[in-house]
Amino acid sequence: MRVLRLLVAYDGTRYCGWQRQENGPTIQAALEDALAPLFSGRAGGARKVPSVHGAGRTDAGVHALGQVASVAGETTLSTGEILRALNAQLDRDIRVLDVADAPAGFNARFNATGKTYRYRIATGPVVSPFLHRFVWHRPDRLDVPAMRQAATGILGRHDFSVFKSAGSTVLDSVRTLDRLDLLECGDELVCEVHGDGFLHHMVRAIIGTLMDVGVGRREPSSMAVLIGSRDRGLAGETAPAQGLTLVSVDYPQAGH
Amino acid sequence: MRVLRLLVAYDGTRYCGWQRQENGPTIQAALEDALAPLFSGRAGGARKVPSVHGAGRTDAGVHALGQVASVAGETTLSTGEILRALNAQLDRDIRVLDVADAPAGFNARFNATGKTYRYRIATGPVVSPFLHRFVWHRPDRLDVPAMRQAATGILGRHDFSVFKSAGSTVLDSVRTLDRLDLLECGDELVCEVHGDGFLHHMVRAIIGTLMDVGVGRREPSSMAVLIGSRDRGLAGETAPAQGLTLVSVDYPQAGH
Repeated sequence: MRVLRLLVAYDGTRYCGWQRQENGPTIQAALEDALAPLFSGRAGGARKVPSVHGAGRTDAGVHALGQVASVAGETTLSTGEILRALNAQLDRDIRVLDVADAPAGFNARFNATGKTYRYRIATGPVVSPFLHRFVWHRPDRLDVPAMRQAATGILGRHDFSVFKSAGSTVLDSVRTLDRLDLLECGDELVCEVHGDGFLHHMVRAIIGTLMDVGVGRREPSSMAVLIGSRDRGLAGETAPAQGLTLVSVDYPQAGH
Repeated sequence: MRVLRLLVAYDGTRYCGWQRQENGPTIQAALEDALAPLFSGRAGGARKVPSVHGAGRTDAGVHALGQVASVAGETTLSTGEILRALNAQLDRDIRVLDVADAPAGFNARFNATGKTYRYRIATGPVVSPFLHRFVWHRPDRLDVPAMRQAATGILGRHDFSVFKSAGSTVLDSVRTLDRLDLLECGDELVCEVHGDGFLHHMVRAIIGTLMDVGVGRREPSSMAVLIGSRDRGLAGETAPAQGLTLVSVDYPQAGH
């Protein structure tokens, strides 16, 4: 049984997120359906659909520049042939950028040690028609230095329950957030975060909270108390999905 | 009667081009329908739909960063109010970037003295999911110096019949093309042209012909003979619409 590691980019606009579901198209289902014809092996006469594991199970409308996925299956195709076959099959808003053989047992989700996400906010009066699918439009005058000060209060190892989605059932909410950069690029404010893992909606809730600071509705010094409260109701709104992009995923050894 | 000058950007992917038609959505119809409620004046009890004139009547799938349009009508709204009202009404893949009052008689189409178009070619093996709507994918090894040499044979004042669409009924095919630059940006080849006017499909036919040169199917020195032939059948294929963007339009006086 070979284990393949896929590097995947997608425009998430028209997908119901990563995870396969009945209600609409998903990235996982598109990859699994594109991989199935490449693998030998049938279950009960029907072709078996392979299980693709994604490092970040992105929500509906969230994009990826460097999602990593793993899949196990039997095939004699080369990695280059698999890459070309997948891209020929997939819609053009999903692209496989790289295919590599991975060690036995590699799982893109459970072996990931870190992730980088980017969130884009358009602050000008008019959003370019070429950007509207990828930004949150907030034509506000933002106090970016205050947002940076607030960010320092979020960095580090904490129980991040205050930023997790209401319906989350995760047992351990402790994560380490080691980078939160805010870059002003013309009419755009780009937030990039890196951590060892993120709770469901965590990046978007952090962005919503920082925006409260940016418009003066929340004190930059209030972050430590906020995190200590572990009360989701006290944090800011969950920023819209379309501004978020999974940039890259880290693994213990380069390439695996 | 006020005359307004609009600066408009659009992602042309889902439109049947600039010109209003029965068969599907167009940029002109979207602008006219968004402007109608802002203008006073009715014809026979029904609200009169204003006529919007565009500098470049872009084809289906062609984009614009700086299309210019003019429209005459009666309104007491300020230009800022008109801009906000139009953008509130329009789908987000069309944005009005600027609204200004223009001199009486200003017509965006007939007063234009020059235009700049850009054509993007993706030359890498895989096209980013964020770019596929805006490029022609040609994963070829291109001889860009040969393409630049061919371009010099096209520059100047010529009868450009060889590059006009088969169905074109324009009487005067003489135009001046004064700039054709080819820029290599990573996996992308960007072609930017400037001239006093362009025949229907002219930019795309030039691109198709230069691509023949780039892959070695046509001699870079053959352009003068080609133009002299005035025979559309001898030029290259018409490059796909989605790679083309109208960048800007020139007028005799700044802003008009």
